[in-house]
Amino acid sequence: MKKCNIAIVGLGTIGAYFYNFMNKNKFIIAKKTNVVPNIIYVCAKNKNKNRLFKIPKNKWVSNYNTIIKDKRVDIVVELIGGSGGAAKDLISKSLSNKKHVVTANKALIAKHGDKFSKIAEINKVNLEFEAAVCGGVPVIRSIKEGLIANKIQKIYGILNGTSNYILSSMDKNQLIFSEVLKKAQKLGYAESNPVSDLNGSDVASKVQILAALSFNSLINKNIHIEGIKDIDMNDIINANKLGYKIKLLGFSELINNKIYQRVHPTLIKKSSYIASIDGVLNAVIINGLPVGQSVIQGEGAGPSATTSALVSDISSILRGNIKYPFATSAKKRKRFLTGNISSLIFSSYIRLDVTDKHGVLSDITKIFSKFKVSIKRLIQNPYKLKNQSSIIIITHKAKDLSLQKSLKIISKKNYIIKKPKLIRIENS
Amino acid sequence: MKKCNIAIVGLGTIGAYFYNFMNKNKFIIAKKTNVVPNIIYVCAKNKNKNRLFKIPKNKWVSNYNTIIKDKRVDIVVELIGGSGGAAKDLISKSLSNKKHVVTANKALIAKHGDKFSKIAEINKVNLEFEAAVCGGVPVIRSIKEGLIANKIQKIYGILNGTSNYILSSMDKNQLIFSEVLKKAQKLGYAESNPVSDLNGSDVASKVQILAALSFNSLINKNIHIEGIKDIDMNDIINANKLGYKIKLLGFSELINNKIYQRVHPTLIKKSSYIASIDGVLNAVIINGLPVGQSVIQGEGAGPSATTSALVSDISSILRGNIKYPFATSAKKRKRFLTGNISSLIFSSYIRLDVTDKHGVLSDITKIFSKFKVSIKRLIQNPYKLKNQSSIIIITHKAKDLSLQKSLKIISKKNYIIKKPKLIRIENS
Repeated sequence: MKKCNIAIVGLGTIGAYFYNFMNKNKFIIAKKTNVVPNIIYVCAKNKNKNRLFKIPKNKWVSNYNTIIKDKRVDIVVELIGGSGGAAKDLISKSLSNKKHVVTANKALIAKHGDKFSKIAEINKVNLEFEAAVCGGVPVIRSIKEGLIANKIQKIYGILNGTSNYILSSMDKNQLIFSEVLKKAQKLGYAESNPVSDLNGSDVASKVQILAALSFNSLINKNIHIEGIKDIDMNDIINANKLGYKIKLLGFSELINNKIYQRVHPTLIKKSSYIASIDGVLNAVIINGLPVGQSVIQGEGAGPSATTSALVSDISSILRGNIKYPFATSAKKRKRFLTGNISSLIFSSYIRLDVTDKHGVLSDITKIFSKFKVSIKRLIQNPYKLKNQSSIIIITHKAKDLSLQKSLKIISKKNYIIKKPKLIRIENS
Repeated sequence: MKKCNIAIVGLGTIGAYFYNFMNKNKFIIAKKTNVVPNIIYVCAKNKNKNRLFKIPKNKWVSNYNTIIKDKRVDIVVELIGGSGGAAKDLISKSLSNKKHVVTANKALIAKHGDKFSKIAEINKVNLEFEAAVCGGVPVIRSIKEGLIANKIQKIYGILNGTSNYILSSMDKNQLIFSEVLKKAQKLGYAESNPVSDLNGSDVASKVQILAALSFNSLINKNIHIEGIKDIDMNDIINANKLGYKIKLLGFSELINNKIYQRVHPTLIKKSSYIASIDGVLNAVIINGLPVGQSVIQGEGAGPSATTSALVSDISSILRGNIKYPFATSAKKRKRFLTGNISSLIFSSYIRLDVTDKHGVLSDITKIFSKFKVSIKRLIQNPYKLKNQSSIIIITHKAKDLSLQKSLKIISKKNYIIKKPKLIRIENS
């Protein structure tokens, strides 16, 4: 049987798990693809780091340039991470040297995916990145193949397991953000440096990749990003009382030939499908024609889910399924205009923490009225010990710009004791 | 650009929709696949039937043998239907004549898929049937590609939109079976002859196909089948009171190297994911290692969803992705022993309609006790006008054989006024 030579670069938790899995399942994969996947190199900066497996001496190499130059290598699996540096250099050179590349690196693909895909196309090799978006959820392959017939108008969902775990634990166990984060880190659901998970940038990379695939467009770098750090227990309790849950969602939509991309905490009806996705799960919802709505849900991260995706990419290459990295040739991918979130229309949850004095409510409602934001529901809750209260407003649908302008003016008022909060409501 | 010649055989609702879609989207598909899909034949028994489109005269052919013999034809799309006859003849001969085949025919694939896949393999052509299972839900491609790394232990779900629509409408609108069925037929959710949708055989075909793909096995014909015709309003009301919904589910599992396949109405907790799938939607749940649980959900049937699947199959062929129809070569697919439902263990809902007289309850409980079926919950509801009552029993986990044996004896008692009902409970 034919062999295909593979090099793994980067041997962290994922790299180690993937190496072990490939070794154990080599012949099962060969049975399905008719080609034996044969790991000939493993590479990492530090050979002596504590790892879950023993690095085989005859496969070890400390400098990835050896791999790039070795003509025997067919596939390079990049598991270094980071949106530039070594990972970028490795992928770029590997593709140029006619090696297929498989990567789990969403930040890098979101940033340089267009350039990489051109190099891959010129050199007639694959660049596969199923593992970069929602780990074990086969969403990329589904868009590129299973749903290929469809004109996708909108794709959105829960794209980050860490933040979803934190929000759903705050909700279920009534724990504050910092406590849940500590617990998540202890359980391995959050990294020691969870910044990109919490500030929305991890979701943003995934949204940009999914948008490019869904709309046959080049990667659009314009995206509105808000993370979950400002969500506190009161917001979650308020949302609950109003029949909603708070989720960090990523959206990309094509409206009148403009791409809108956004990541922000979102209120969604408790009875909706996406509200039921708790813990570290990911879920992607795809609205397309002719198929209607499709949903794919599963483990979004961790070594086992990521390995499932990496192996599906490797198998696709072993089977000889050469495809454009973004489904369509780089030359034919469109460049859409960007739409700004300011021009979209939302119902919103607004929370204003104010000093309890007369005239405040009338001032606030006047400002909203000036910007044509009409109020659907208003609840004022006094804080127990202080002379303060919290005003919760659910607005009717209004232009996001009007909501933002209203809040900008309100936030400067002397009765405001904390930065006003705006959480958009998703009704679909 | 290269062309690929396609013949469509069967021009019912699906065939007509598919033909129109392909005509409109020819160049969009070409952009993604680098090959122009070119329909050169359309074929149906009756040319003059009322159709949503005008059959182009220059493409019309009344005898499919013309297509089989024409060397220019690359892909045959079989949309005749039926588990034998013309559809079987067409597929078999097309594959033998080195033509790729795409079909939406689940009954035929479940019955003859193994034989067809051998012919396809010998002739190095594709046999694709994404449209045969759950329409627009790309579950087959996901198992064959996206989840290829995984050892699947269990695959189950809601696989028939018609029966799911009926059960969820009975539940939501408190309508009796026959009324809902009439409404479903009016809305096009049920066919004028809905037998295979209601008696579970449609689900059974899908279960058999999914099992073969998931377990890399030959198609196993042994399957326990129960439909939904015996479910009445009282069962739905009882289930609701107990915190459950009733769904028609199809299951295939690999337990100790034996395949268990079954289709039956099932009680599932209201809070579970699958209980939330209402209407004509389909949902498939896949438990595999290393990925854990994956869920795919979407439109299960109808011309648009089916067309989405057909086009994904066509595109895969256009891209030159030649693959074994069941992911693994027919020679290497295993033949597992069959496990019988009798040896599985279930909690169950049992409903006994009895004459209201003393001694009945003690007799029933004695019989269950004899077969080691222990009772978790028992509710006796008297019927208003008659001297009768309905006894609802939720059992602890017991061997299915014991449950069946108990009911067989009970059913012969003279206090039983209606065939006893057993609905299994799924806890996963």
